[in-house]
Amino acid sequence: MNLPSSILQHAVDQLSSLPGVGRRAALRFALHLMRLSDSEIAEFASSVTALKSDLHYCRLCHNVSDSEICPICSNPKRNHSLVCVVENLQDVLAIENTQQYSGLYHVLGGVISPIDGIGIRDLNIQSLIDRVATPSDTPVSEVILALPTTMEGDTTAFYINRQLEPLGVKVSAIARGIAIGDNLEYADEITLARSILHRIPFNESH
Amino acid sequence: MNLPSSILQHAVDQLSSLPGVGRRAALRFALHLMRLSDSEIAEFASSVTALKSDLHYCRLCHNVSDSEICPICSNPKRNHSLVCVVENLQDVLAIENTQQYSGLYHVLGGVISPIDGIGIRDLNIQSLIDRVATPSDTPVSEVILALPTTMEGDTTAFYINRQLEPLGVKVSAIARGIAIGDNLEYADEITLARSILHRIPFNESH
Repeated sequence: MNLPSSILQHAVDQLSSLPGVGRRAALRFALHLMRLSDSEIAEFASSVTALKSDLHYCRLCHNVSDSEICPICSNPKRNHSLVCVVENLQDVLAIENTQQYSGLYHVLGGVISPIDGIGIRDLNIQSLIDRVATPSDTPVSEVILALPTTMEGDTTAFYINRQLEPLGVKVSAIARGIAIGDNLEYADEITLARSILHRIPFNESH
Repeated sequence: MNLPSSILQHAVDQLSSLPGVGRRAALRFALHLMRLSDSEIAEFASSVTALKSDLHYCRLCHNVSDSEICPICSNPKRNHSLVCVVENLQDVLAIENTQQYSGLYHVLGGVISPIDGIGIRDLNIQSLIDRVATPSDTPVSEVILALPTTMEGDTTAFYINRQLEPLGVKVSAIARGIAIGDNLEYADEITLARSILHRIPFNESH
């Protein structure tokens, strides 16, 4: 695409760097933005730069937050003795959407992945161990690992579990099995095997 | 989606105002932008605001341009006596991509649409008439109407033709017919009827 303006070209280049956005969509975005008023485009640009300049990360759980402590960690109604370890913000949102979890979170910011150059020090693992080890009025009694079932996720979970074991805290993992509504015949064999292995009493299954 | 940060929420609101972008994609965009460096995000934001502050419109054809006269209008190798009238920038790009047209353009910036409140004065129609009427070294000998085949496009074409008729300039319209590679049986009857009505000598059809 040979655009008649280097300014438009540059904006299209920048917009097409967004995930899943091709050059055609980026051009549509640029033409839309061109039609905005001066104040609208200034608001658009400042909301984007604020993502970098004004956004905080919660000092306790490392979730994004407007303040030093996020609304979840500062909520006295939540169970502060329960910490769910997740990879990223999207996973927090997914669990919050279920409205079934009332504990706190710990956002690792990724999983251990030597191929991508992500090691233990790049993740919020030490702060999780400190969080469990530090004496407090409401000590952490259980850590729930809700990490992806990939080799990287499993490695990370294994490492965290080994670090937490000496601290005497209960470490659990979310249940894996056949999704509600799925047919057994279409499930992959590993998931099906795990769901049989980790079967639960029928009276608890509803 | 209940985001834990009003700054993130605001950015997602702004990003989801882009055409065809839902809240889920906007969140993905925001999380991507958060990971950029300070200089990268500044460049992203400035490229967007430049669309409003620095982008010019060609004084002759109203296409977007970095300068007062766009590269097409200032190109001496192009045929300055031929002007193709299009609705918007995308149509210029589509015609340029064919590499078959060497004349100039005139970008209307829309078509007459009373329902959307777009009238004759909102479009670059008067400047087209002035362009044809003004004496010049290379007077416009032909105006090619390449407007959409909608009621609005047809109305606009009809109006422009009536304004140009007294000036004695040749006014033509791009050919409508069965697309190359399309089967006759799947063509709509209006297109097929037009392609029969406007048949051309076989020797000219390749």
